[in-house]
Amino acid sequence: MADQPVSTGLRGQSAGSTALCTVGKSGAGLTYRGYDIHELAEKAKFEEVAYLLLKGKLPNRAELDAYLTKLKGLRGLPEALKTVLEQIPKDAHPMDVMRTGASMLGNLETEQDFDQQQDVADRLLAVLPSIICYWYRFSHDGVRIDTETDDDSVGGHFLHMLRGEPASELHARVMNVSLILYAEHEFNASTFTARVCASTLSDMHSCVTGAIGSLRGPLHGGANEAAMDMIEHWQSADEAEREILGMLERKEKIMGFGHAIYRESDPRNAIIKEWSKQLAEDVGDQVLYPVSERVEAVMWREKKLFCNADFFHASAYHFMDIPTKLFTPIFVCSRVTGWAAHVFEQRENNRIIRPSADYVGPEKSEWVPLEERP
Amino acid sequence: MADQPVSTGLRGQSAGSTALCTVGKSGAGLTYRGYDIHELAEKAKFEEVAYLLLKGKLPNRAELDAYLTKLKGLRGLPEALKTVLEQIPKDAHPMDVMRTGASMLGNLETEQDFDQQQDVADRLLAVLPSIICYWYRFSHDGVRIDTETDDDSVGGHFLHMLRGEPASELHARVMNVSLILYAEHEFNASTFTARVCASTLSDMHSCVTGAIGSLRGPLHGGANEAAMDMIEHWQSADEAEREILGMLERKEKIMGFGHAIYRESDPRNAIIKEWSKQLAEDVGDQVLYPVSERVEAVMWREKKLFCNADFFHASAYHFMDIPTKLFTPIFVCSRVTGWAAHVFEQRENNRIIRPSADYVGPEKSEWVPLEERP
Repeated sequence: MADQPVSTGLRGQSAGSTALCTVGKSGAGLTYRGYDIHELAEKAKFEEVAYLLLKGKLPNRAELDAYLTKLKGLRGLPEALKTVLEQIPKDAHPMDVMRTGASMLGNLETEQDFDQQQDVADRLLAVLPSIICYWYRFSHDGVRIDTETDDDSVGGHFLHMLRGEPASELHARVMNVSLILYAEHEFNASTFTARVCASTLSDMHSCVTGAIGSLRGPLHGGANEAAMDMIEHWQSADEAEREILGMLERKEKIMGFGHAIYRESDPRNAIIKEWSKQLAEDVGDQVLYPVSERVEAVMWREKKLFCNADFFHASAYHFMDIPTKLFTPIFVCSRVTGWAAHVFEQRENNRIIRPSADYVGPEKSEWVPLEERP
Repeated sequence: MADQPVSTGLRGQSAGSTALCTVGKSGAGLTYRGYDIHELAEKAKFEEVAYLLLKGKLPNRAELDAYLTKLKGLRGLPEALKTVLEQIPKDAHPMDVMRTGASMLGNLETEQDFDQQQDVADRLLAVLPSIICYWYRFSHDGVRIDTETDDDSVGGHFLHMLRGEPASELHARVMNVSLILYAEHEFNASTFTARVCASTLSDMHSCVTGAIGSLRGPLHGGANEAAMDMIEHWQSADEAEREILGMLERKEKIMGFGHAIYRESDPRNAIIKEWSKQLAEDVGDQVLYPVSERVEAVMWREKKLFCNADFFHASAYHFMDIPTKLFTPIFVCSRVTGWAAHVFEQRENNRIIRPSADYVGPEKSEWVPLEERP
């Protein structure tokens, strides 16, 4: 509308402080509690990163073993939650399923006191993969899966439930990297949602439920799915180039490129791209990876736009036979660590987040009785 | 923590523009689309205010009649949603029930396109009272109520379901006023949650579900319940005065007073206070209303703190025999109009809400292999 100020989306305005993450900070790049994302993706387990984010330091061997055992023991679904998931139709949006599952859990295992926040966060981290896979396998395959597998990792657990058999070492490794890359990203819209909710001193399930709702949006977590929907239609790199040029010509939005904060590149891209390449070799792909590479090259050449974390995630997940509609739910299974860590942080130094607004409505409206209105 | 900046909660910073509401704007007070809150509370139906907020103008007679008929027709609960509500235990937090009900509805009646936003908003407005009352009566009284009553108003519908009989004229009138007072309040934390979610272009159910989670917090919607929990213990105005003075002495937080934006008074207070007084006379109360008045006087005398909208809502709802734990859910049934109107507005002129953060963590952390960690 012409008379409205431009929406700035709080871009560049600080909404608080955090010790969790740097995003594009000059000289620092992307770090979680000071650890560089490249080092974490290469050397850490996702659960180790979760521990780092939630507890403030890397675990030693005994602490990590205990944490892995704890998370393994928290994968089961309460009967009432299974019943709820069974009410959700096959054609539902999987992010609606995640949102509802997290919300329902809050009725059954309510955070009564902030002293419980670590346990509530661990439970969510362990059980969110169970929630999405239980619903998916029940609604799509008609089976009631046992979510209490013996897999060592969150990523392996997810793939095992989805396919009914343990994941290969390569797949478990890629899932591990992917979950690390998505774990935390400062004041992105879903994390900010969680912090706004936390600032009213609401409970953890409300914060995470709200964050899932924000991550659902196509301008946020939905980007990897949108990228997949686009690239899967093209049979060759040349076709992809022609189509992309046409889309640019028509000024269509191309998902998986650019970023609200990064200006020149997304440090997560090179990492997931390398794994996508390995997976392409593993499955003998001759189409999707070359298509993806070409799209990346054309977007840079034409628009100086770079791939963000989402773009090569699309092909990587696809090579692991993960249905496209589960891409964003995997993001949830990872980002819940960042959300929860931000909720802890908000609670530690809280003031209710209540901005002002610029009023652009009528100065004064005169009441007209019902019968006299036009 | 000593080394962290003070949390400012975006206080005084504009996070966008709105034509819906002025809060404490100099000379304007509280208005919805330019209409003064006093005039609306005296002359309008809540559904008329909902129409104003959602559609941008007051309805004429034909439009209002059609809108009332439409809302009446949208009170029924899908079977799957009833089943979900029946899984939620009696001791659950009613706001968790609301959050889960709204989220579950999103699986069954997904907003597929923003063209549907008005219908989705109307459906939520009509069905949220059904959700909370169905759960409440099932879990507490063991009955499966019919939520499709013939009551003319949202407030009457709520009271009818809760008690199993139509509300008196006085009670329906007070509910009407209360729902108008709570309908909209600019960029409060729950509305801001809805706008952050909407800014990712997520769906209406996600926005409303997230907003419910934020309203649940004791620093936000929980205040009227907290006020009730406090005042119901006192047997006389003198006892209330002694206790309040003691609480002030011990620097305890007293809920229902002060406001993030208002500095001298909350314009909603005088309105609901007058109705609380009428209800006190109606039930022959000699305790709760005098206690409330005294608390108001003492807080002003001692601290220059004024009652906000929540304080006299506590006694008003109590006089109507509404269980304290349903106070905040009623707030949801009202505020959903403001939330939805803000979602419409955000979508009309959108940019993803993605603020920055001040980094206060370690500059650089050196990776230490697992076996070498202390």
